[in-house]
Amino acid sequence: MTYPSPLLKLMQHLRKLPGVGQRSAERFAFQLVDWSPRELQGLAQALQELPLVLKSCSECGCLRGEEDCVFCNKKTRESHSLCVVGTARDVYPLEEMSGFRGHYHVLNALLSPMEGRGAEEVDLEKLRRRIQELEVEEVILALDSTLEGDATALLLKESLQDLPVKLMRLAFGIPMGSSLDYVDQGTLAQAFMGRQKY
Amino acid sequence: MTYPSPLLKLMQHLRKLPGVGQRSAERFAFQLVDWSPRELQGLAQALQELPLVLKSCSECGCLRGEEDCVFCNKKTRESHSLCVVGTARDVYPLEEMSGFRGHYHVLNALLSPMEGRGAEEVDLEKLRRRIQELEVEEVILALDSTLEGDATALLLKESLQDLPVKLMRLAFGIPMGSSLDYVDQGTLAQAFMGRQKY
Repeated sequence: MTYPSPLLKLMQHLRKLPGVGQRSAERFAFQLVDWSPRELQGLAQALQELPLVLKSCSECGCLRGEEDCVFCNKKTRESHSLCVVGTARDVYPLEEMSGFRGHYHVLNALLSPMEGRGAEEVDLEKLRRRIQELEVEEVILALDSTLEGDATALLLKESLQDLPVKLMRLAFGIPMGSSLDYVDQGTLAQAFMGRQKY
Repeated sequence: MTYPSPLLKLMQHLRKLPGVGQRSAERFAFQLVDWSPRELQGLAQALQELPLVLKSCSECGCLRGEEDCVFCNKKTRESHSLCVVGTARDVYPLEEMSGFRGHYHVLNALLSPMEGRGAEEVDLEKLRRRIQELEVEEVILALDSTLEGDATALLLKESLQDLPVKLMRLAFGIPMGSSLDYVDQGTLAQAFMGRQKY
């Protein structure tokens, strides 16, 4: 195809987005051609700023901007319940079902025998410290229903068994083999309510 | 939803892309979070450069980069046939079917009684000059099968009738009411081959 090089370059970048193939990249690129320089600059700036202004909460690992972490706010969130997730992204579908008012804990790594990520990648000490400091009564494992999620759940079960907490895991209403962020609201809420002792 | 502000801002920009709703914008934004600063900078730069490095060929109106216009190259393109399109984008699906080796002419505006765009928006003089200079024998109108496309085709028919050219229009294999860039390859090629005297 005879696209001019600036368009080709832009399409190559856009194709790295999830679910964006050649046809979508073309559609996006041609619409971007019609954006004003000001609009293009706006998006470009948001992209450039991202690594600078998007931070992780040093306490729970959730994403935050310049503002304080909304999930660590002791006034609005209850501390007796701690929900453990694999990535900061997993927090948002859980928040959307709006049944949970406890705290979160982002592991940022799941065990992966396939990719050689072992127990040393998971900061168990930090999780234990938070459970004790927050006086958590219930730890809810909201992990992917995958090999990695299962392996990590097992590790946490073994590592936390000396602590006086109920360890729970989302009910297997989650469709097997899929990642958390592909689950629809209804299934997710059902899995959350039907959580079973792990 | 409690997304941090840098993510929200990014999602707002992404939602302006065609076919991108809230869910896709979230998916894109979260993937962009995982991009390296270098990758983000790459996309940002491609966006910022776009208005600077993407040019229109002053002759045919097609898009080009720093290089010469590939569609005006007299060595590789035949001048006896001139294909008139509404926008620079329309050239690419026509090129993809790879049956046409003539020149293009981008109008950059279709008549629109609804939006108050009249004949004065179409540079008829330039089109007439090109037809004469290139010694064009056949003018093919590859315009949208819409009210605007029909109105523009009629205008061109009236305006070019004193010139010694065959005026053709793509056959109505094009699904009625749809824009050129939504047409599949097969239908487009059929419409091109079955072009009728207009």
